[in-house]
Amino acid sequence: MAETVFINCFEVPEGRDEEFLGLWSQIDERMCEHKGFRWRRLYRSLAPDAKLRYVNVAGWDSAEEFDAAHDEDFPRLQAQMWEFPALPSLYTVVRERIAQPEETDR
Amino acid sequence: MAETVFINCFEVPEGRDEEFLGLWSQIDERMCEHKGFRWRRLYRSLAPDAKLRYVNVAGWDSAEEFDAAHDEDFPRLQAQMWEFPALPSLYTVVRERIAQPEETDR
Repeated sequence: MAETVFINCFEVPEGRDEEFLGLWSQIDERMCEHKGFRWRRLYRSLAPDAKLRYVNVAGWDSAEEFDAAHDEDFPRLQAQMWEFPALPSLYTVVRERIAQPEETDR
Repeated sequence: MAETVFINCFEVPEGRDEEFLGLWSQIDERMCEHKGFRWRRLYRSLAPDAKLRYVNVAGWDSAEEFDAAHDEDFPRLQAQMWEFPALPSLYTVVRERIAQPEETDR
């Protein structure tokens, strides 16, 4: 079944990682409980001066289920995140490639 | 083995998808041939007005191998992409979750 992917890129100043992760985890815990959630990965940049220091990528069954997961608690939780500018959007996979097994001498 | 993930977020105006994808594919073909490449996925936003309309996410064995993949052809190819603002960085996974199988009535 096709997958809808939510990607959210965050600007998090150095030194505020713990604060960000605490808030992010509160929202994440709720979202992952909802119907349609498949998987998510949170990435942190290796470069401390990257603009988008955190990127959250999450697979959902559909945009409808992702939207429905934003329940009555969501605005309150999200409000606390406003200090960290974010660029959220829903995406679809347009190209996919996995490395072929390495060739070996025969 | 731990994975290093390259994420590149692109601003691509509506209507210039074909041009972007042509240039992106030229670079992508080269990168995927290099040692250390594991997988990549290119995402396109479902919302035509999203700021970051394309996001490329690629798994590599290490930052060293990713860096080494930027061979002598790379600057020439990248120069053609400058019309599409991009936010590239290397990342590491800090949180990962996969949905548990659904509960069923017993």
